[in-house]
Amino acid sequence: MAQRKLQKRSRKVGLSPGTLLVEAGEGQSTMRVIGYGPNELEEQVISGVSELQRQLALQPVVWLNVEGVPSEATLRELGTAFSIHPLALEDIVNHSQRPKVETYGSQLFVVVRMVTEKVKLVETEQVSMVLGRGYLLTFQAGQPGDCFGPVRERIEKASGPIRTAGADYLCYALLDAIVDAWFPHLDEYCERLEALETLVLAGPSHSRMKDIRAIRWDLLKLLRVMRPLRDVVSELRSDRSELVAEDTRIYLRDCHDHALRIIEEAEMYLDIGTSLMELYLSSVSMKTNEIMRVLTVISAIFIPLTFVVGVYGMNFDTQIPGNMPELKQPYGYVVAMSAMLLAAVTMAVYFRRRGWLGLPREDLDERG
Amino acid sequence: MAQRKLQKRSRKVGLSPGTLLVEAGEGQSTMRVIGYGPNELEEQVISGVSELQRQLALQPVVWLNVEGVPSEATLRELGTAFSIHPLALEDIVNHSQRPKVETYGSQLFVVVRMVTEKVKLVETEQVSMVLGRGYLLTFQAGQPGDCFGPVRERIEKASGPIRTAGADYLCYALLDAIVDAWFPHLDEYCERLEALETLVLAGPSHSRMKDIRAIRWDLLKLLRVMRPLRDVVSELRSDRSELVAEDTRIYLRDCHDHALRIIEEAEMYLDIGTSLMELYLSSVSMKTNEIMRVLTVISAIFIPLTFVVGVYGMNFDTQIPGNMPELKQPYGYVVAMSAMLLAAVTMAVYFRRRGWLGLPREDLDERG
Amino acid sequence: MAQRKLQKRSRKVGLSPGTLLVEAGEGQSTMRVIGYGPNELEEQVISGVSELQRQLALQPVVWLNVEGVPSEATLRELGTAFSIHPLALEDIVNHSQRPKVETYGSQLFVVVRMVTEKVKLVETEQVSMVLGRGYLLTFQAGQPGDCFGPVRERIEKASGPIRTAGADYLCYALLDAIVDAWFPHLDEYCERLEALETLVLAGPSHSRMKDIRAIRWDLLKLLRVMRPLRDVVSELRSDRSELVAEDTRIYLRDCHDHALRIIEEAEMYLDIGTSLMELYLSSVSMKTNEIMRVLTVISAIFIPLTFVVGVYGMNFDTQIPGNMPELKQPYGYVVAMSAMLLAAVTMAVYFRRRGWLGLPREDLDERG
Amino acid sequence: MAQRKLQKRSRKVGLSPGTLLVEAGEGQSTMRVIGYGPNELEEQVISGVSELQRQLALQPVVWLNVEGVPSEATLRELGTAFSIHPLALEDIVNHSQRPKVETYGSQLFVVVRMVTEKVKLVETEQVSMVLGRGYLLTFQAGQPGDCFGPVRERIEKASGPIRTAGADYLCYALLDAIVDAWFPHLDEYCERLEALETLVLAGPSHSRMKDIRAIRWDLLKLLRVMRPLRDVVSELRSDRSELVAEDTRIYLRDCHDHALRIIEEAEMYLDIGTSLMELYLSSVSMKTNEIMRVLTVISAIFIPLTFVVGVYGMNFDTQIPGNMPELKQPYGYVVAMSAMLLAAVTMAVYFRRRGWLGLPREDLDERG
Amino acid sequence: MAQRKLQKRSRKVGLSPGTLLVEAGEGQSTMRVIGYGPNELEEQVISGVSELQRQLALQPVVWLNVEGVPSEATLRELGTAFSIHPLALEDIVNHSQRPKVETYGSQLFVVVRMVTEKVKLVETEQVSMVLGRGYLLTFQAGQPGDCFGPVRERIEKASGPIRTAGADYLCYALLDAIVDAWFPHLDEYCERLEALETLVLAGPSHSRMKDIRAIRWDLLKLLRVMRPLRDVVSELRSDRSELVAEDTRIYLRDCHDHALRIIEEAEMYLDIGTSLMELYLSSVSMKTNEIMRVLTVISAIFIPLTFVVGVYGMNFDTQIPGNMPELKQPYGYVVAMSAMLLAAVTMAVYFRRRGWLGLPREDLDERG
Repeated sequence: MAQRKLQKRSRKVGLSPGTLLVEAGEGQSTMRVIGYGPNELEEQVISGVSELQRQLALQPVVWLNVEGVPSEATLRELGTAFSIHPLALEDIVNHSQRPKVETYGSQLFVVVRMVTEKVKLVETEQVSMVLGRGYLLTFQAGQPGDCFGPVRERIEKASGPIRTAGADYLCYALLDAIVDAWFPHLDEYCERLEALETLVLAGPSHSRMKDIRAIRWDLLKLLRVMRPLRDVVSELRSDRSELVAEDTRIYLRDCHDHALRIIEEAEMYLDIGTSLMELYLSSVSMKTNEIMRVLTVISAIFIPLTFVVGVYGMNFDTQIPGNMPELKQPYGYVVAMSAMLLAAVTMAVYFRRRGWLGLPREDLDERG
Repeated sequence: MAQRKLQKRSRKVGLSPGTLLVEAGEGQSTMRVIGYGPNELEEQVISGVSELQRQLALQPVVWLNVEGVPSEATLRELGTAFSIHPLALEDIVNHSQRPKVETYGSQLFVVVRMVTEKVKLVETEQVSMVLGRGYLLTFQAGQPGDCFGPVRERIEKASGPIRTAGADYLCYALLDAIVDAWFPHLDEYCERLEALETLVLAGPSHSRMKDIRAIRWDLLKLLRVMRPLRDVVSELRSDRSELVAEDTRIYLRDCHDHALRIIEEAEMYLDIGTSLMELYLSSVSMKTNEIMRVLTVISAIFIPLTFVVGVYGMNFDTQIPGNMPELKQPYGYVVAMSAMLLAAVTMAVYFRRRGWLGLPREDLDERG
Repeated sequence: MAQRKLQKRSRKVGLSPGTLLVEAGEGQSTMRVIGYGPNELEEQVISGVSELQRQLALQPVVWLNVEGVPSEATLRELGTAFSIHPLALEDIVNHSQRPKVETYGSQLFVVVRMVTEKVKLVETEQVSMVLGRGYLLTFQAGQPGDCFGPVRERIEKASGPIRTAGADYLCYALLDAIVDAWFPHLDEYCERLEALETLVLAGPSHSRMKDIRAIRWDLLKLLRVMRPLRDVVSELRSDRSELVAEDTRIYLRDCHDHALRIIEEAEMYLDIGTSLMELYLSSVSMKTNEIMRVLTVISAIFIPLTFVVGVYGMNFDTQIPGNMPELKQPYGYVVAMSAMLLAAVTMAVYFRRRGWLGLPREDLDERG
Repeated sequence: MAQRKLQKRSRKVGLSPGTLLVEAGEGQSTMRVIGYGPNELEEQVISGVSELQRQLALQPVVWLNVEGVPSEATLRELGTAFSIHPLALEDIVNHSQRPKVETYGSQLFVVVRMVTEKVKLVETEQVSMVLGRGYLLTFQAGQPGDCFGPVRERIEKASGPIRTAGADYLCYALLDAIVDAWFPHLDEYCERLEALETLVLAGPSHSRMKDIRAIRWDLLKLLRVMRPLRDVVSELRSDRSELVAEDTRIYLRDCHDHALRIIEEAEMYLDIGTSLMELYLSSVSMKTNEIMRVLTVISAIFIPLTFVVGVYGMNFDTQIPGNMPELKQPYGYVVAMSAMLLAAVTMAVYFRRRGWLGLPREDLDERG
Repeated sequence: MAQRKLQKRSRKVGLSPGTLLVEAGEGQSTMRVIGYGPNELEEQVISGVSELQRQLALQPVVWLNVEGVPSEATLRELGTAFSIHPLALEDIVNHSQRPKVETYGSQLFVVVRMVTEKVKLVETEQVSMVLGRGYLLTFQAGQPGDCFGPVRERIEKASGPIRTAGADYLCYALLDAIVDAWFPHLDEYCERLEALETLVLAGPSHSRMKDIRAIRWDLLKLLRVMRPLRDVVSELRSDRSELVAEDTRIYLRDCHDHALRIIEEAEMYLDIGTSLMELYLSSVSMKTNEIMRVLTVISAIFIPLTFVVGVYGMNFDTQIPGNMPELKQPYGYVVAMSAMLLAAVTMAVYFRRRGWLGLPREDLDERG
């Protein structure tokens, strides 16, 4: 399981910066444009950059969403049309950037990571955004599918201020969707931790340990993505450029708060994970202690008795005086057995008093 | 137990900001207004916002306390009457905000968390406050019941400067009540930790471990609430708006100090918890060591002796020369038994010297 | 022991700030005034505030030291005479404040904690100071007795610059005495840690563990008091008010340095404590290992031999062909015993080579 | 292995600063100059500094790369020709500098560490750079071979902006190459950690522990080199001198980002290492527990039975009344054996119910 | 050993600041003056302060080095002659100051700690410096002997810029010598850690644990001295006074870098120490596991067999039908022995498959 978590990079060491190295199997992308304003709305799938020009001229806000990795030609065309900096273009192709905001002239270039919906395995894909006056370009690196559905719906239904606000508000709305998409995952971690606690209390097992590790691991990955994402939102909020309107800043403050909450909850779950690990190790320790207790009690009772019966199994010649007269005693056998029973009972009582014959099961069961 | 601690969120992922999603089973609330000034005092339960207008015009300070979640209609009405920002309205409905202060125009919006009185389980509920010139709106999210009783009493009895001061002082008084409500809980943790220490010293048990974890857990939750609460008080203290009077700032400094003290004590108790955990694990370790010692002493004494008696239990034919002449020796049995006794005593003395036959119980009992 | 360490608060939750709640058994105090200047010195015990007025008029510096908790009436009188802020008055009565400096108008209000001389148990008591132009009021909350003796002596003997300097220098001198009073305690911790190390190396015991915990605990408490105390000194040093003269600031820098040294030493002793704990746990672990080694060596040698003698104790009918012919062999017994001896020696040599028959005692003894 | 990791210094304690102490076996170096501009390119190996003068006059950018430690004479000559500060010269010879940037008049002096290609052992060598107007001197301290190949190729092929940019861009390109050279190593750590996790899960072994330690150790070394390297890039980015052009700063921002990513990944791998260590220790603990369980179950079943058969091996005289009548009972043997079988089965069922006879192997195998 | 590490203070609690309390056995000192300039050099041992005046007038730089603690009279004389602040004088006598820089008027007062050459035990002694225009006073608190030899030599041989530079350069040169004197000690720690790693891998032993602790302890002490020393150098570098020339600041930057490197290496060695401790504890844990495995395998094989031979040692009367017919079977003995052999082999194979009969020694030996 862990293997898949450790993302491989295919860095192009030593290449000139700005080189666009589209990897094999990539270069296939869908470009979908939504142009809108208070009263207009136009949505289409385009195949070339030229088709964009008309919409840019007509509609207040144009959102070009590129799903998948575009071919180098398309990228260069977009780069020219929107005068995107070569380093930004390189970052769009290079899918292992850490979240960041950069200002290139009158454009803001934002890289964040979006959670994708895989079962039991949190994966993230890079989303690069180029925010300019009147347009927003978004590039989704991974598999088709995103968490922008509700935003598209709000544009279509003109719900909330989205249709009257600018491209900066759209950028905020997408960031907010990306941040909020983490909440269901956090809830899932919460449930899995609860289930694990019940299992760990029921008895330590090696697979529990692995589950705890897996969750902590996922949370560490989440924090690695969310902490710079929070900084991205925070930087956008305090950006000095005129690209982000004053009103949008208030909304970004809210988004920043959500990111903060996700980080704090993730840190709390990490703490729970550590605490579970301690509980687990303490369980193993108690269990070993308990096993040792059983072994010791049984050994302590029977080993001395076995010695005693061994004594009466010796073959000393009872004809010769002084040699094992007990063996010829009437009822010697009954006396010996009774003495041994007495010794065993004494031992058992002693161990019980020391608490070694407690009912450790009960102790485990009293939870609930 | 842990389940209930991990609060579920019902986030409305992707909804437009400002959406008020009142959950099923909510929408029932009681609105109680207290309007007061140096010489006047009027208290009533209102059902509609319109009834507020008169008091706002007449009395220097109007405190509207909403208990429970109001219906969307009521909220919108309040929002319009007091021109509350949509994001603030959303935060009032959304009960899992982290404590924060936000400035919306000439209003301060404060979110904090108040401890509620549940036995053996610390729960918190969100309290949202809207502070404006001459009025304070408070929204309590959870069950009926709060810790504002003494503040109400001070208003009624006009004790202290509360009747002559403004809405900002009322806001401070409520924050102070919320902060101080944690002190009895801290005292309780202190007592439970003391009790636990006594129990852990009496003997390790799995349920002790769980109790320690539960307390540490509660303290972590407390810190998660108190740290941003301290920041809230600190921000209010240094707020540049004119809503908070200079005199109130001095009082807030005091409140900040209390919050700091609660945080430091909670951190101290956390440290005690960690220390108890170490004591616990060390106890288990010592206990296992002690058990092993008993097992080893008994085995080391009796296993060799059992071998010896086994030797004399062998059936070599004593008629044939060289085969076990001891068995035919007069008093061979007595000699063998004496030799074995001597060996056992020697062993016991040796172990006693090594300290393996100490009285570990005593060691545990010397505390007190 | 631990119980007494966890200080109980008797917070007056929800009371109006500035309320002076003198607890039962309190309200008894001694007020001693020392008024001095370069050429004058007058010391007396007063019972009312009015007697102070004369001295304030005549002498350059007046130091009023209140030991024990004054009655509410006296406090209010003092409050009026020196125009002390209600919050400061409240803090004087409330004995669990954390060290702090606060400016109220032209007064500085300082709260610190002074170590009191209890055997084997570090206790602190609150000392509140009100520093004004020409006077210093000090309030000692706990039992009679303080560490100000040397300062009083210096005033009486006019040694050093104390008689020519102002009230700010007196305040520094008292703070310095409070800080320096910790040094002998640190020395004591140092000695106790050394003694403990010797004991832990001599053999792990549960009571060692408790001693280590007790010391770490005391050190944590010390740090909780000293860190804000250092901040108090640091704030006084950089205070912008004119109450603290430039010369006194140089002395406060020295005092700050001492506080820093105490904190660093306490942190070092904490580290030693942790290190001792590790040594202790490692000792237990090694001890268990050693015990297991003894058990295993004895079992591994004697259990197989016991099996062998058991074989020759079987009752197969030696008359019937093929059944245990060894038993009828001349000197079969001697051969069998020799073979067993050989096996035992071989085992012992093998275990010795593996280092399981070492002399672990020696290993422990080589220290020194 | 560890020995070689701990680098020996041969500090010249107490020597005058600026002393150039070339060590025995050093003093052999190759000096290769590349002079280039938009339209020109000249590359040669030189043996004396004088040959440089011509190129410096003719070509816009001159890159002198010195591989190996030059003789003191050569160094002094270079020092004079380029007016390098004595302290910078000393640092060039002294190979254990930590990465840093220093400004000496109109020159920037940069020290970084470059990873060298050794199998299974990350070694770094010092690279010192002197950046002046129109020239860049680089000194590689270690073995021949570097990671600058791709940069040289870009100069030769004039790919990217390198030929038109200044010496500052060359400096950036080399730093970027040094930073990016770490990525393949990180990938290797990632693979080794994955392999180790599989091995640790298959069963704990002492050599696993050592492998984990080795990787963590390498990562700590990497971080010790990368953190100041990041600071170097960051300082160059914000340098106030005119040596670094505005355009180059944008590229340095990118390089800074790469350094940050390497640091974050290394920290993540460190965390995985710690987590593996925990898994390892937990494995050992579980394994011991499992072994104890087997021992206890076998002992608990057979030790009591051995006692019982010992009883019937006693030699009490069955002729005498009351002595072991069972031995003469018809089918007494069958009854005894059946009773023992029953007891053994009962014990086994009991242990199975307690989970001590589980199939722990299975538990381990369920991974995958 | 540990005792000597924990330095005793003899604080003069409550004394007036500036009191010079020369301890018994002190008050003996040697004062050596070196006066020098570009062309002059005069060195002498003086006994009184008056002899200094001539040199101060004649030579550009006068270095007075006081070894041992001077008598109070001498100190006061020096204090008057150089107008040293009383607090600085007190700090010179008080030997447990933490490193610091302080400005008193036109003088800089520096306190640092110098390592002294004791075998296997790092001790430090306080060096106080008073830097004024044209003179430097140094006070060495401890035993005779220092690390200033190379600096004196450079003065005598006029090597480097020392003779032409001012007293500030001399101060730098001494600080540099003090910092660099730590490098050989670090090398020694490195070697001891390497040796320890080899020993720990060869087998855990209690004395290893103590050695690791001792090294970590020394490193903690080193860091306690070096961290404030680094701050001292850093403060001198950025000092605003005119006492430190611009050129000297560049040299101090270099010295600062060395201090940083020492701190980083010490921190690395601390990490190695922690890692060794983990290796050690893991070794003990693995060793116990291995011992348990041997015990369990032997017990599991022989305890059931012993039971079987016990069965055939029972004395059931074989005359009576149904009682142990096996005993009368021809070759029953051979059959029984073969069956037991088979069982033992089966067990051994089973344990081997589970990996419990591995060759753990080999595992340990594969290192190297």
